[in-house]
Amino acid sequence: MATGDIGLIGLAVMGQNLILNMNDKGFTVVAYNRTTSKVDHFLANEAKGTKIQGAHSIPELIAKLKKPRKIILLVKAGSAVDDFIDQLIQGGLEPGDIVIDGGNSHYPDSIRRTKTLEAKGFLFVGSGVSGGEEGARHGPSLMPGGSPAAWPAIQAIFQKTAAQAYGEPCCDWVGETGSGHYVKMVHNGIEYGDMQLIAEAYDILKRGLGLPEDEIADIFLKWNKGVLDSFLIDITANILKFKDDDGEPVVTKILDKAGQKGTGKWTAIAALDAGTAVTLIGEAVFARCLSAIKEERVRASKVMDGPKKEPFRGDKQLFIDDLEQALYASKIISYTQGFMLMRETAKELNWNLNYAGIAKMWRGGCIIKSVFLKDITEAYVKNPQLESLLFDDFFARAIRTAQPGWRRVIAQAVLWGIPTPAFSTALAFFDGYRSEVVPANLLQAQRDYFGAHTFRVVPGKENSKFKLGEDIHVNWTGRGGNVSASTYNT
Amino acid sequence: MATGDIGLIGLAVMGQNLILNMNDKGFTVVAYNRTTSKVDHFLANEAKGTKIQGAHSIPELIAKLKKPRKIILLVKAGSAVDDFIDQLIQGGLEPGDIVIDGGNSHYPDSIRRTKTLEAKGFLFVGSGVSGGEEGARHGPSLMPGGSPAAWPAIQAIFQKTAAQAYGEPCCDWVGETGSGHYVKMVHNGIEYGDMQLIAEAYDILKRGLGLPEDEIADIFLKWNKGVLDSFLIDITANILKFKDDDGEPVVTKILDKAGQKGTGKWTAIAALDAGTAVTLIGEAVFARCLSAIKEERVRASKVMDGPKKEPFRGDKQLFIDDLEQALYASKIISYTQGFMLMRETAKELNWNLNYAGIAKMWRGGCIIKSVFLKDITEAYVKNPQLESLLFDDFFARAIRTAQPGWRRVIAQAVLWGIPTPAFSTALAFFDGYRSEVVPANLLQAQRDYFGAHTFRVVPGKENSKFKLGEDIHVNWTGRGGNVSASTYNT
Repeated sequence: MATGDIGLIGLAVMGQNLILNMNDKGFTVVAYNRTTSKVDHFLANEAKGTKIQGAHSIPELIAKLKKPRKIILLVKAGSAVDDFIDQLIQGGLEPGDIVIDGGNSHYPDSIRRTKTLEAKGFLFVGSGVSGGEEGARHGPSLMPGGSPAAWPAIQAIFQKTAAQAYGEPCCDWVGETGSGHYVKMVHNGIEYGDMQLIAEAYDILKRGLGLPEDEIADIFLKWNKGVLDSFLIDITANILKFKDDDGEPVVTKILDKAGQKGTGKWTAIAALDAGTAVTLIGEAVFARCLSAIKEERVRASKVMDGPKKEPFRGDKQLFIDDLEQALYASKIISYTQGFMLMRETAKELNWNLNYAGIAKMWRGGCIIKSVFLKDITEAYVKNPQLESLLFDDFFARAIRTAQPGWRRVIAQAVLWGIPTPAFSTALAFFDGYRSEVVPANLLQAQRDYFGAHTFRVVPGKENSKFKLGEDIHVNWTGRGGNVSASTYNT
Repeated sequence: MATGDIGLIGLAVMGQNLILNMNDKGFTVVAYNRTTSKVDHFLANEAKGTKIQGAHSIPELIAKLKKPRKIILLVKAGSAVDDFIDQLIQGGLEPGDIVIDGGNSHYPDSIRRTKTLEAKGFLFVGSGVSGGEEGARHGPSLMPGGSPAAWPAIQAIFQKTAAQAYGEPCCDWVGETGSGHYVKMVHNGIEYGDMQLIAEAYDILKRGLGLPEDEIADIFLKWNKGVLDSFLIDITANILKFKDDDGEPVVTKILDKAGQKGTGKWTAIAALDAGTAVTLIGEAVFARCLSAIKEERVRASKVMDGPKKEPFRGDKQLFIDDLEQALYASKIISYTQGFMLMRETAKELNWNLNYAGIAKMWRGGCIIKSVFLKDITEAYVKNPQLESLLFDDFFARAIRTAQPGWRRVIAQAVLWGIPTPAFSTALAFFDGYRSEVVPANLLQAQRDYFGAHTFRVVPGKENSKFKLGEDIHVNWTGRGGNVSASTYNT
């Protein structure tokens, strides 16, 4: 009687499309929705003529599934997930059964749910699902993490349902507890960064070089044949070509107030909490915040002048090539920062993350899919212990080549008065990262001066007063005491 | 019998100094510490010959205070504060008595404590205290917020104990619930920003112009006579002049790994949560994070080249003047962002913040004290409803004057390969803020393309398909559906 390979709860567009996708791949899916009329409607329409089954109650759903049962939740992140988990448990879930949360849950919730469900004998998987409606229907990027014992039971379904890129599925086991949703969160943060970089390039081409949308689209089309080849560059070209009935590009009719749903913000906060300088995603999130205060910007634009606009006198094509390099180099920095964040978090939470696997999962199916991610996969396959992307030969060479143009573009944008928060922070990070000495010695001196926060001595410069590895306080003024700050922090 | 004007719990350096300060101003302070031997030691030494009284238990402390009792906690932020509050309540605190938390508590805790204590009939004040040991002893900046009814009872003590600047106390009532600690947190965030800006200027003078610490100190001394006149510029000059016994500046012996205690991070997270682009503090926090991975930077410095170092060929003095303007303009942006953050939070939490009062409190006594804050005070006194500092005539003129040099410095640093994350993000913010149109229209198009997130039309460009004020979705590919994204977010 139980013939279902997997169950899915939540028949919004994403859920419906994922079911149809799994059905196409040969799996028998049982569909359930709280408003059960949606189940009937789905079976009578989109799912007509398929093997898809319906359930009108949680117990019915459970009864129709082969053991160990696998049930994907695709419902609104938050309490709805916990509610359905409770219903599943009360509805007859048995030890060894697997609950999979495919929504956009925050990773601390997935950490908690893994622990709670494992304590009761169940298995839990929090899986990132990326690719939007299209991806869900034809092959998303799937990033499952949680109870390791669940992976063998779901591997075939997940890897066949996922997008395939370069002959491999865009799905692999991410790691423990909340790591699947964590990696999905970082993916989304990186997506914010990629989009902001493209927006800055568009702005420079439009406001700097004064090019019309059609020409800018052609530039993106050309870039899409090179190192920047990616879904986002591709759709940007399509967008810029897309005309309204009056022949005007639709993009110029769109209000410049960017929305956000929070995952970029989560990534920036996670970076601050981990103490990792994920500056580019931070700037991308803040750029959206600044875009959102449109009315204030309009008032400011009336009273605050920038530099006098002068026509560009250099070689346009050379400058456009520089811009391609600026975008590429900044993107390398953004991914470097993203992987540094995952590394730090894995260290802290004792996750064993497979970085090559993560890059592989992002190569296809999702918003940031790109040739670039194939190169990152190769870097981590070659050296799973890679300290950061910038230490990989391929990317080191790429940055070396890109550097002069990258610097010229930013210097020009600064003189033009065109904001490039993401390009600029990427370069600042690169210049800081490759600096043996940064001016934080002065910060430490200041902190010790006003707050007795102490400092350490540079190895090689130690002496009888400044001992290596010790916390040192100097009586800078001759007035302050010799007491180091303890409980109080100025 | 009860002759104490105010009690203080916690006899670390800050607590002792604050007691001595209040004693100097004519108030009778009762000192208590959990380890009571500290009380005896304090009375027999630092407090000898003063009116300061000691207490060896909480009930004794309470018994020695005049009603309504005022008790300052200067203990480690966190559970210790709650513990002492419980002890005070059990020890005989009566309705109308005032508990003041002068530690570095996170504002959500102060919001909670205000509510809890008010519900029991007590009054609560969370007060920012800035200025370190020196400030506590001779006049700190005090930022009290919480139960408004507490203010008249503590005003005289607080305003006399605080630093005086320009004939006025650096203390005023901040606002409701957790606003005192919130404003202190923003103060600390701004302090991170100011320090990072100074560090970048130092780096440019040292690595860019190749100047020795002595000459750089002279430049800061000169700046300290102009618009940058401030405590932090002053101590920077002192630090750079401060030599070790071998004649080498101590600052060059200090390890370039910056510590942080978390308030900068809190500010950046608060900014992300409020959706306000406080980019400069964000970059300042991340710059400290990047400094902290010293060993990784050293390894990176061996394999990653920057631009070829060429000697500076321009007019050094003109460049140094440009740098002063770059620092000044960036600082204006940082404070603009800080006040925007307070405005947004006040809106959200229904606080009535007195912005002129806040600037006034920061003019003296604290780490960021400066002439600059006098100018900010005047801007908000002139117009309490000021939209942002950049709309004030004084600051608008200052930015206008600073702009060309600011841009030249950043462009030069970018070509030199010297990181200027704070200078650069300040300029990017300014250029974005004064942009009527930013390229977020493209972001919105992308979000609608891949996730059906919808967009709005630019007013004036609406038509029969693109209606003003409506959420619009376009079928960009001819393949995607017409369903807007709802629960699912790619």
